[in-house]
Amino acid sequence: MARLENTTDYLIAPRVQTKGLARALTGTDQHGQPIDLNVIEERPLTIYLNAQEIVTAMTIGDYPEYLALGFLRNQGMLRDTDTITGVDYDEELGVVVVRTDSMTIFEDKLKKKTRTSGCAVGTVFGDMMEGLDNVTLPAMPVKTSDLYTLAAKINRTPSLYLTAGAIHGTVLCQGDRPLVYMEDVGRHNAVDKIAGWMLSEQIKPDDNILYTTGRLTSEMVIKTALMGIPTLASRSGFTAWGVEIANQVGLTLIGRMKGQRFVCLSGETRLIRDADPYKIVDEPKQSNRKGTQ
Amino acid sequence: MARLENTTDYLIAPRVQTKGLARALTGTDQHGQPIDLNVIEERPLTIYLNAQEIVTAMTIGDYPEYLALGFLRNQGMLRDTDTITGVDYDEELGVVVVRTDSMTIFEDKLKKKTRTSGCAVGTVFGDMMEGLDNVTLPAMPVKTSDLYTLAAKINRTPSLYLTAGAIHGTVLCQGDRPLVYMEDVGRHNAVDKIAGWMLSEQIKPDDNILYTTGRLTSEMVIKTALMGIPTLASRSGFTAWGVEIANQVGLTLIGRMKGQRFVCLSGETRLIRDADPYKIVDEPKQSNRKGTQ
Repeated sequence: MARLENTTDYLIAPRVQTKGLARALTGTDQHGQPIDLNVIEERPLTIYLNAQEIVTAMTIGDYPEYLALGFLRNQGMLRDTDTITGVDYDEELGVVVVRTDSMTIFEDKLKKKTRTSGCAVGTVFGDMMEGLDNVTLPAMPVKTSDLYTLAAKINRTPSLYLTAGAIHGTVLCQGDRPLVYMEDVGRHNAVDKIAGWMLSEQIKPDDNILYTTGRLTSEMVIKTALMGIPTLASRSGFTAWGVEIANQVGLTLIGRMKGQRFVCLSGETRLIRDADPYKIVDEPKQSNRKGTQ
Repeated sequence: MARLENTTDYLIAPRVQTKGLARALTGTDQHGQPIDLNVIEERPLTIYLNAQEIVTAMTIGDYPEYLALGFLRNQGMLRDTDTITGVDYDEELGVVVVRTDSMTIFEDKLKKKTRTSGCAVGTVFGDMMEGLDNVTLPAMPVKTSDLYTLAAKINRTPSLYLTAGAIHGTVLCQGDRPLVYMEDVGRHNAVDKIAGWMLSEQIKPDDNILYTTGRLTSEMVIKTALMGIPTLASRSGFTAWGVEIANQVGLTLIGRMKGQRFVCLSGETRLIRDADPYKIVDEPKQSNRKGTQ
């Protein structure tokens, strides 16, 4: 536990020092007194797949290439069979273009659907669910001691959340080690940036754990499963459908993880309960995440 | 303050007793003991504008007609000039269709855009910003005593958040009275349901206040402005762009409102500071919203 405040262990740590991700603003407090605040930035990023405009995401603006790649991958618009030939980011225009060597199945389907029934915004969700049919996650055992260590390390890591608030964090972990810590105003952006990094680095996620500050909704569970990660943990709650899908694909799902407390709603048989909850220290007050809704 | 626990004052109160919005699930806690939980439902709802499929939203499922109307209105797809001839909800299919007497400008634009450049998902955001150009909000004075009373009433109102968690709330208020309290898994759905109700009831929002549990992002600020509501308050934080837009359209923006504390980031001159913050009691512990990320 001596390395708690040391972020050099991360492959990617939160970009606390990077300029342009937060801004100093002055407001007034409850007594009418000026108060200086560090406020998170938010800017539009339009994602293209080849010539096809896909979506405009609101993001803090770091790692636009990973965000675009991960978004397209998690929506099932980019598949294993697609060969990516380039990812071009134009900062001035706020545009990122992901190019493949030939037209993707998604573009082809979209073209057909567009011809028959107009635009196809609503297909996005159906495509995500469709991708789940082929997913069976590896039955990876999870030590509760690792989960506690991860939560403690992550909560004490200097982050934009701790300096500015109003932001979500998602961390790709292995054993008791947090590897890649992404933050963003949109909770799905943080996950998508991790998916983009994994795709770029050709990561095999069979023994990874994903930790998120966000709720365990169906979309978060689906994304984690599509990324091939067998364990998902969060300090927040869950939805009934998120729990259902986790059970269906064999995802170990841990929610409401704060201090010594947690709830397991899927994958109890994969948990190795090697930690004594009574020996877990409470969280330091400054990492008491609340209000980041 | 005698009416705090009384929800009969609401025109629409949270649907705590309605079946089908939450489900009993059993998990295991940190000691490996079974734990019974009340978990929020989440289901897909596909919204059509006439023959045009628009989007599939993930929602708890109450007020689908208001959600569809409000979503279309807040995205600028339905305008004042459109005459709505019907809103049809099919529970089994999870589909709601909003019908107008003639083709909307949005459908017409989408058709043209679809012909020239394929699907037009990315235009949604541009259309929202475009609608802001015509918005000037009334310079409504806001009493801090009303803000404190509203926060206290809302936090003590029986809600799905208090019984199940993992859900967002948004409340349309007038003076010190909360009128319509909507909850949903998606934070924008709760706002959209209020917009749909306002549209149905032909509400003039010139003296309304919108209270939300969610963050004050650009999208939340834009929606509030498009709904014509001059004041937006939240217990959560804000983004720099949200603050910028609020200043631009003359929206009074109050964030991080908890107990006696709050921060005003836009509209300080419209605040009437008639309450002594030191006399505000702290929030009861069970309404300490956290983890609803």
